[in-house]
Amino acid sequence: MAERTTSKKHDEFVRERMEDKAATELAGIGEKGGEQLAALGFATAKQVLGQFLVMGEDPDVFGDWLQQNVSKLNSKHRGDLIFCLQEWIKRNL
Amino acid sequence: MAERTTSKKHDEFVRERMEDKAATELAGIGEKGGEQLAALGFATAKQVLGQFLVMGEDPDVFGDWLQQNVSKLNSKHRGDLIFCLQEWIKRNL
Repeated sequence: MAERTTSKKHDEFVRERMEDKAATELAGIGEKGGEQLAALGFATAKQVLGQFLVMGEDPDVFGDWLQQNVSKLNSKHRGDLIFCLQEWIKRNL
Repeated sequence: MAERTTSKKHDEFVRERMEDKAATELAGIGEKGGEQLAALGFATAKQVLGQFLVMGEDPDVFGDWLQQNVSKLNSKHRGDLIFCLQEWIKRNL
């Protein structure tokens, strides 16, 4: 599999602890997506991680949930977010 | 605040990564509670952590959810589980 290209935002996020970072510090989540997520009760990166974990880290299930609930994230945003969470988990959890 | 007494199970859990540990490796979760949690879709420690994170790490909200859904956990079990998750988060997340 070809290595996925990652953003500076991704690289910075995955090498640190999450602690109290906002959801918008995750790769793929900008201001508008962050507002929608916060309105759903997911203001922090830890809460977004929690939702991914509850869904068994299944990218399809989580991606569908995002698509249905966070319209400001397009398919590239969703992919960037999922990959960021997966890499953080691989390194830390 | 007096320091809380912790079990060997707690101490072992909080000092390691979660990776693919079963929910029953968390302090407070025995065989019966683990079976109930698995039936609800929370078979792994990571999924239980996810539910706690989604609930904003609020011990009251999470404790109420446990009380309503996982009858095999008594109040001591719930307290042990919450403290185990809190300490793991403080050290790792």
